[in-house]
Amino acid sequence: MIPAAPDVNGVAVPPEILTARYAHSQDGAPRIVIIGGGFGGLYAAKALKNAPVRITLVDRRNYHLFQPLLYQVATAALNPSDIAAPIRAVLRKQKNVNVIMGDATGIDVDRNVVRLADGELAYDILIIATGATHSYFGHPEWEENAPGLKTIEDALEIRRRVLRAFEAAERETDPARQQAWLNFVVVGAGPTGVELAGALSEIARQTMIRDFRRINPTSARVILIEGVGRVLPPYPPTLSEKAASQLRGLGVEVMTNAIVTNVSDHGVRVGETTIPTRTVLWAAGVQASPLARTLGVPLDRTGRVLVEPDLSVPGHPEVFVIGDLASVPNVPGVAPAAIQEGTHTAKNIERMIAGQPSLPFHYHDKGSLATIGRAAGVADFGRVKLSGFLAWSAWLGIHIFFLIGFRNRLLVILQWAWAYVTFQRGARLITGKVEPLMKE
Amino acid sequence: MIPAAPDVNGVAVPPEILTARYAHSQDGAPRIVIIGGGFGGLYAAKALKNAPVRITLVDRRNYHLFQPLLYQVATAALNPSDIAAPIRAVLRKQKNVNVIMGDATGIDVDRNVVRLADGELAYDILIIATGATHSYFGHPEWEENAPGLKTIEDALEIRRRVLRAFEAAERETDPARQQAWLNFVVVGAGPTGVELAGALSEIARQTMIRDFRRINPTSARVILIEGVGRVLPPYPPTLSEKAASQLRGLGVEVMTNAIVTNVSDHGVRVGETTIPTRTVLWAAGVQASPLARTLGVPLDRTGRVLVEPDLSVPGHPEVFVIGDLASVPNVPGVAPAAIQEGTHTAKNIERMIAGQPSLPFHYHDKGSLATIGRAAGVADFGRVKLSGFLAWSAWLGIHIFFLIGFRNRLLVILQWAWAYVTFQRGARLITGKVEPLMKE
Repeated sequence: MIPAAPDVNGVAVPPEILTARYAHSQDGAPRIVIIGGGFGGLYAAKALKNAPVRITLVDRRNYHLFQPLLYQVATAALNPSDIAAPIRAVLRKQKNVNVIMGDATGIDVDRNVVRLADGELAYDILIIATGATHSYFGHPEWEENAPGLKTIEDALEIRRRVLRAFEAAERETDPARQQAWLNFVVVGAGPTGVELAGALSEIARQTMIRDFRRINPTSARVILIEGVGRVLPPYPPTLSEKAASQLRGLGVEVMTNAIVTNVSDHGVRVGETTIPTRTVLWAAGVQASPLARTLGVPLDRTGRVLVEPDLSVPGHPEVFVIGDLASVPNVPGVAPAAIQEGTHTAKNIERMIAGQPSLPFHYHDKGSLATIGRAAGVADFGRVKLSGFLAWSAWLGIHIFFLIGFRNRLLVILQWAWAYVTFQRGARLITGKVEPLMKE
Repeated sequence: MIPAAPDVNGVAVPPEILTARYAHSQDGAPRIVIIGGGFGGLYAAKALKNAPVRITLVDRRNYHLFQPLLYQVATAALNPSDIAAPIRAVLRKQKNVNVIMGDATGIDVDRNVVRLADGELAYDILIIATGATHSYFGHPEWEENAPGLKTIEDALEIRRRVLRAFEAAERETDPARQQAWLNFVVVGAGPTGVELAGALSEIARQTMIRDFRRINPTSARVILIEGVGRVLPPYPPTLSEKAASQLRGLGVEVMTNAIVTNVSDHGVRVGETTIPTRTVLWAAGVQASPLARTLGVPLDRTGRVLVEPDLSVPGHPEVFVIGDLASVPNVPGVAPAAIQEGTHTAKNIERMIAGQPSLPFHYHDKGSLATIGRAAGVADFGRVKLSGFLAWSAWLGIHIFFLIGFRNRLLVILQWAWAYVTFQRGARLITGKVEPLMKE
C-alpha cells in the first residue's frame, strides 16, 4: 500500500504519481519523470517508447517548441503554431507516457521528488531538460530594452517592437528621431543573431518597401554587434568570413570586437560610441535554467550542471541532465546535441533497468548550419563546407525534416514558398496591448 | 500657407495632415479621415480608390481583422494571422491612402480634428467606423471571469482558458472539482455563441479524446445560455429550431429563457441555479465604441449614434458613422451591413465633392448564416433556407470568398481541410504568462 500523498499548496496530487520515497508505482514499473518537453526531453521520452517504465513528462508549456525557427516568428514569416506542437498530441500514441502541465521549481534529490509551483512529482529516475535562456552579462536591467529570443512570447514581443518601429517612423517628422526608429541593433552574432539580422534587413529592403508613404524603409540600418573577432564564432573561420560577406550583401552592418557597455530605450553604447536606436534585440550569452541551482551540485559559470560522462548528476546516478542545461566538454548547445543526449539517456535507463552499467555519452557532430536571408547561408558538414544557395537549401531541407508534425511541415513549406515568390511575410500583426506609438 | 501644426502630447504632427480648420490639403484635394480599419472603414477606403481625395485611415491596430472567423482562433482551429491582414499591405497599391497607426480618443467636430492618444488629425470629411464591443449589462466585474470575443487578444485568452481547463482537469483528483473544469458555459446564443459552443463540444468529443490519460474529455459539458426563447434570435424561428437541434446533436446543452444573474470564478448563476464551472465565455450584449460619446450627439441605449438616413451625424453632414457604431433602423450589426455602409458612404462623399446631395442608405439583406460545428449549420437567404451540410458549405464558400488576401484563403482552406480529415486543431498552444495551473 502506497501512503496517501500529502496535499501541496492545497492541491491533491494523484497518488499514482506521488508516492513515498523510492517506492515503485503500482504496476512495479519504474517511474521516470522528465522535466521539459524541448528537444532533449521529448526525444528521451520517444526513445523510451518500448521500455517497461511509466513516464511523466512535465512542462510549464503545453507545447514542444522548434526553437531553430523561432526567429522566423519574431520576423513575421511564420506563426507560433507552425513551429510548436502540443506535447500531448505528439506523444498521444505512446501509452507509457503521461504528459502534465506544471512549472518545476525545485528538485529534492533526497526525497526523490520534483517540486512544482502547485504540487509535487515523485520519481525513481529523473531527466532534467529545462534548457537555458540568454544572459545579460550581469546587466539584467538591459532586458527591458533588449528582449531575447527563447519563447513564443519573446518572439511575439520582438515582432511587435520591430513592426511598431516602422509605424512610429512613418509618423515621426524629426529626421534624427525617425532614423533612430529605423536603426535596429542585434547584439550577438551566433546563429540566432545572424539569422535575425539577415531577416530584419530583408524586411526593410523587400517586405516593407511599397507599404509606406513617408518613410523609405530601405533607409533602415541593421547593425550586428559581436564581442569577438568574427561572426558565427563556433564555425570555421572561412565560413564566418563568407557569412559576414553575405550579411554585408544584405545591407547588414557587421561590428566585430565590439563590446556593448550600455543599453537604454534610446540607444546602445559600444565602447565610446552610442548608436541611436529604439529597437535592440539580444542574441548573446547563455544562462542555464535556475532549476539546476536547486540540485546542490557544482555548476559551471553559466549555471549548467557539470555532469558525469553518462550525463548523470555526480552522486546521483538516478538523475540525468541533458540538453542546454548539461555542461559536457566539447558539446555545443544546439538541438542535435540535445536530441542525442536524450536518446542516449533513454538507452542508459533501459540498461539500468536491465542491471547493466550506464555508458558514457559521445557527441556526433553532424555539422553546423545557419541561414542568412533569402537563398543565402553557410553550412559546415566537416569536410563539406557550403555557402550561399546550397547551404540555404540544406538548411531548408533539414529544418523541414526535423520539424514535428506533418501539418506543420506542410504549412511551413507553403508559407516559405509564398514568401519566396512574393517577398511578403504573412504574420505582420502587432498584437498585445494598445499603447501610444509616439513617445519621447 | 498652412499654419504650422501645434505639437500635441509633445509629438510633432506632420503639417500635411494637421492643418487649420476647414483648410484643404496642399493639392486642394479634400482630406478624408477614416477611423477604424474593420469592414466599414476598409471598404469605404477601397471604394474611394478613384476619388480625388487624400485619405488617412487610422487604426489602433495595424491589421484588418476578419471577425466572423475569430471564434476559430479562440477554438484553436486557425492562427491569428490567417484571419488578419496588415491594413497597410491591403491598401498598398491605393496611392490616395495613407495608413497610420494611432488610437483615436475623441472627435472635435468644431475644430474638424480627431484627437489621438499621441497626436491629432485634421479632416474635411470624417468617417467613424470604430465598431462595438460586448456588454455585460451593467456588470463590468463579470468580464474577468467571462471574457468576450472581439479582438485577437480576446481569442487567444479564450483559447488559453479552454485548453488550460482540460490540463487542470487532467491533474485534478477531486471528481466535483474536476467536473467544474470540464464544464464550459457560453452566455449568449447569437451566431458567435452558437459557433463557440459547437466548436467547444467538438474539441471535447473529437480533438482531445485520445490525448488525455486520466480524464475522459467526452465528460465535458458545454452549456449555451440564452436570455430569450430561442437560439439565433434574429433568424427565422424554423432555423432557430434546426440550429438548436444540431447543437443538441453535438452534445451542447441549450438553455433558453435563462438569465444570468451572477458570474464568479467558480460558477455561473442562472435564476436560482448555480452551474459549477471554471470557464465562462461571453457572447452576449453589444456596447458601442466609446468614441461616439465624444461627438456630443444623441446615442441609442447601447451607445450607437442615431445617424441621419445618409449615415451622417445630425448637424454635421461632413461626419459619417458606419458599421456597428451606427444605429440604423432594421440594419443588423453584421459584416455585410458594415461593408454596404462603407461603400455607400464613399459614393456619398464622391457626390458631395461633385456638389450633389447625398443619398439615403438602404440595406440589402443577402441572408444570414451560422455554422454549428462539422458539416452543420443554418442559412437563411430569404426564400431559400438551408440547414446541415448545405448551409455549412455555403458558409465555407462565402467566408473564404470575403477573407482578405489570397495567402490567407489558401492557408485557411488547407487548415480546414486538414482539420476535417484528421479531427485535429492545429493551434492548440497555451501562450501567455506561466501561472500555476491548480488553484482553489
